[in-house]
Amino acid sequence: AEPQRPEMKTEVPGPKSLQLLKELSAVQESGAVQFFADYERSFGNYIADVDGNLMLDMYTQIASVPLGYNHPRVIQAFKDPKNQAAFVNRPALGLFPSGDHVQRMRQTLMSVAPPGLSNVQTMACGACSVEHGQKAMFMSYQRRKRGGEGPSKEEMESCLKNQAPGAPNLAILSFKDGFHGRTMGALAVTHTKWIHKLDFPAPDWPVADFPKLRYPLDQFTRENEQEERRCLNMVRDLMATWEKKGCPVAGIVSETVQCEGGDNYASASFFQGLQDIAKENGASLMLDEVQTGCGATGKFWAHEHFNLRSPPDVVPFAKKMLTGGFYHSDEQRPTESFRIFNTWVGDPSKMALLEAVLEVIKKDGLVDNSKVIGDYMLNGLLDIQNSFPAILSGVRGLGTLAAVDCPDAATRDKIITLMKNKGVHAGTCGTATLRLRPTLTIQRKHVDIFLDIFRGVLKDL
Amino acid sequence: AEPQRPEMKTEVPGPKSLQLLKELSAVQESGAVQFFADYERSFGNYIADVDGNLMLDMYTQIASVPLGYNHPRVIQAFKDPKNQAAFVNRPALGLFPSGDHVQRMRQTLMSVAPPGLSNVQTMACGACSVEHGQKAMFMSYQRRKRGGEGPSKEEMESCLKNQAPGAPNLAILSFKDGFHGRTMGALAVTHTKWIHKLDFPAPDWPVADFPKLRYPLDQFTRENEQEERRCLNMVRDLMATWEKKGCPVAGIVSETVQCEGGDNYASASFFQGLQDIAKENGASLMLDEVQTGCGATGKFWAHEHFNLRSPPDVVPFAKKMLTGGFYHSDEQRPTESFRIFNTWVGDPSKMALLEAVLEVIKKDGLVDNSKVIGDYMLNGLLDIQNSFPAILSGVRGLGTLAAVDCPDAATRDKIITLMKNKGVHAGTCGTATLRLRPTLTIQRKHVDIFLDIFRGVLKDL
Ligand code: FES
Repeated sequence: AEPQRPEMKTEVPGPKSLQLLKELSAVQESGAVQFFADYERSFGNYIADVDGNLMLDMYTQIASVPLGYNHPRVIQAFKDPKNQAAFVNRPALGLFPSGDHVQRMRQTLMSVAPPGLSNVQTMACGACSVEHGQKAMFMSYQRRKRGGEGPSKEEMESCLKNQAPGAPNLAILSFKDGFHGRTMGALAVTHTKWIHKLDFPAPDWPVADFPKLRYPLDQFTRENEQEERRCLNMVRDLMATWEKKGCPVAGIVSETVQCEGGDNYASASFFQGLQDIAKENGASLMLDEVQTGCGATGKFWAHEHFNLRSPPDVVPFAKKMLTGGFYHSDEQRPTESFRIFNTWVGDPSKMALLEAVLEVIKKDGLVDNSKVIGDYMLNGLLDIQNSFPAILSGVRGLGTLAAVDCPDAATRDKIITLMKNKGVHAGTCGTATLRLRPTLTIQRKHVDIFLDIFRGVLKDL
Repeated sequence: AEPQRPEMKTEVPGPKSLQLLKELSAVQESGAVQFFADYERSFGNYIADVDGNLMLDMYTQIASVPLGYNHPRVIQAFKDPKNQAAFVNRPALGLFPSGDHVQRMRQTLMSVAPPGLSNVQTMACGACSVEHGQKAMFMSYQRRKRGGEGPSKEEMESCLKNQAPGAPNLAILSFKDGFHGRTMGALAVTHTKWIHKLDFPAPDWPVADFPKLRYPLDQFTRENEQEERRCLNMVRDLMATWEKKGCPVAGIVSETVQCEGGDNYASASFFQGLQDIAKENGASLMLDEVQTGCGATGKFWAHEHFNLRSPPDVVPFAKKMLTGGFYHSDEQRPTESFRIFNTWVGDPSKMALLEAVLEVIKKDGLVDNSKVIGDYMLNGLLDIQNSFPAILSGVRGLGTLAAVDCPDAATRDKIITLMKNKGVHAGTCGTATLRLRPTLTIQRKHVDIFLDIFRGVLKDL
């Protein structure tokens, strides 16, 4: 059963974690390690570490644990004899899928497809999901340009040498503070911290400002509208500039909520405007749901909050979905085989676990739960912000995706450390933001513990 | 127990596969699918399909199955209660590794580290292993250039906008017909087929010729030496040209055997020369072992055949290793945290299975087995080539990595199809090459069945 509350024996990282860290550092750079976990003893919303500590987990492996640790239904799926073959025989899924693959796709990925998107391509992590989604956008752009003709001999030959016209001069427009992954194509549209980008060659692609909204929203309606208009105009201008440069924008990429960049939100009308601009310019729109998908925002997909006039063209997912992949429109479907491909293109064993996860999400109404508990948590955070206006600002959230800003990184990090040592494990993002990413199974009692410890830490600060 | 021989009930793909293919095509482009497999019934070196066929598998999920299907020791590892937590709780491994992670790293990845390389970074597939290996090379290049100084403010700011000097104008030199993956950075050094590359923007990086050796090697010693010299000179020239262009080469990337590009080999002295050129130019050398690593060549790592004067700087792996990652020298270790990072950075559940795989490889002497059986298979192939000199040429191999050329793609594909319908499942690569990639547990009896059916097909052609 799930523990009733945190239980702390040592500071975190404790002596055992520190010893293991020293050993791990012998074989790799390990400076990011926070502690060594005990996944056997972790349960539900609580993560255990090797020093006997038990923390309420409000960060959940960078927002990637859907139901919590060792969920009985997930363990059941793991032990189900019908899934064994998927775990011990990883296929080259694009060549030799298993007999139950189609059925499993229907029961898992297609059962939660975003409204209007009836295609899905499996992948293995967020980065390859974004990268191959970008490739789909480049292909559809060139296909439109060719107007039904096949590629020329010159194109087929030049692309092998990384040269135009086969490797065309095309861009993806992305946003300041956006994060999409760490491989070259995903990193080219990522603009968060220098530590992510420095020393790596990157294509000269346009980067627009993402709206910086002021909170509380109802007090800054006019300013925020203006800000969003400014950013949309910038998008429009950049697209024209790159078109003129001979490097047209084939696709626009944005998160639905900028997560790593600081939990930055924009309104539904901003995303509607963005889609309009994409369509006017013959570009595709990718809405990256790697961190926001799978129910935490109170809708299964965060972009369902946007009332878009038509579905986004490409929607990459990973993290809580356990497998990577991207949904896409018919227009983004490759017309040749082997265009979107690699050895594994996913992992059916993750889909076997996802099947259990989705079953629980549906049966237990966990998307609604995210809305209800999210609202409860947001109210609690607003209360605390009111109590500590000199320390906290900009409380914001959508479902259980929630965040609050601190005056600076040092203060934020101190709060995180103090909370951790009292048994609440929270995350960071942006420059001075505290980020909350609980599981989908979070309940009021967990929120109460978190709010209580958070308030206590702020009081003692 | 493993079947005694192939058993064919229908042509491949059979009616059930065709029906499933139609259904799968409703949700994704699926033109590459060859058949739907029955992984429960597959065993050892035999793959079963949904139509009741049983084929000797000489392709093994694009060379990614180390021990064969449903290996008892792998199933045991899967069922071992101590591994359960790794399967149902995927960690953000760079932040919260489990308590047994260090021990597991030692027992798995570090126990088979290439001689002289004592660092390893886990990843999840071949592409991210190559991409992050490239990042390590870019970082080490810039670090050398800075001579111990930290990055400048201008560098830290400009990189966020994809601009120099923070996103420097640096290149990776790669080879014609090389294959390293499908994400933007890995694809930038891939030069196999237009279908892999067309429509995707790519950096202007130098591409050298890879030696085209003539077979049998002992009859073309002088020609082949000349050819390798020519290619090395081309590498040298390209590096000078790019240096002059203001886009110096930070790293050279090559497979140890060009696999997707047609099973193209070069001699130990070629790779020694390549390493010399890299060192002379202050560039790093990546030898991609995604397809050649893990014992199939008769050494655990194919580059151990090269007697290099010092270890390669970066060695990416995946496929038979079940997890991705790359080994690297101390010099390639990032000096800051979060430089080589993503949400999952690997998957401990794959390492739990790898532990069993490596145990069997060592206990059963499977690296030696690859050598012995590989020699046996190569002799058999040479015999067959002698019998059909108008159809076959260029038989070549290293361990059980083996290949033979056909006059054209149509003939090759016809042979593959005929063999498949007689129960031997082989692969293709290059333009007209037949590629063999059996498991590490292959025995003489399997080779005899393959050779027998191969000969029969050629006779009937
Ligand atoms: S790039 Fe996604 S798993 Fe390797």
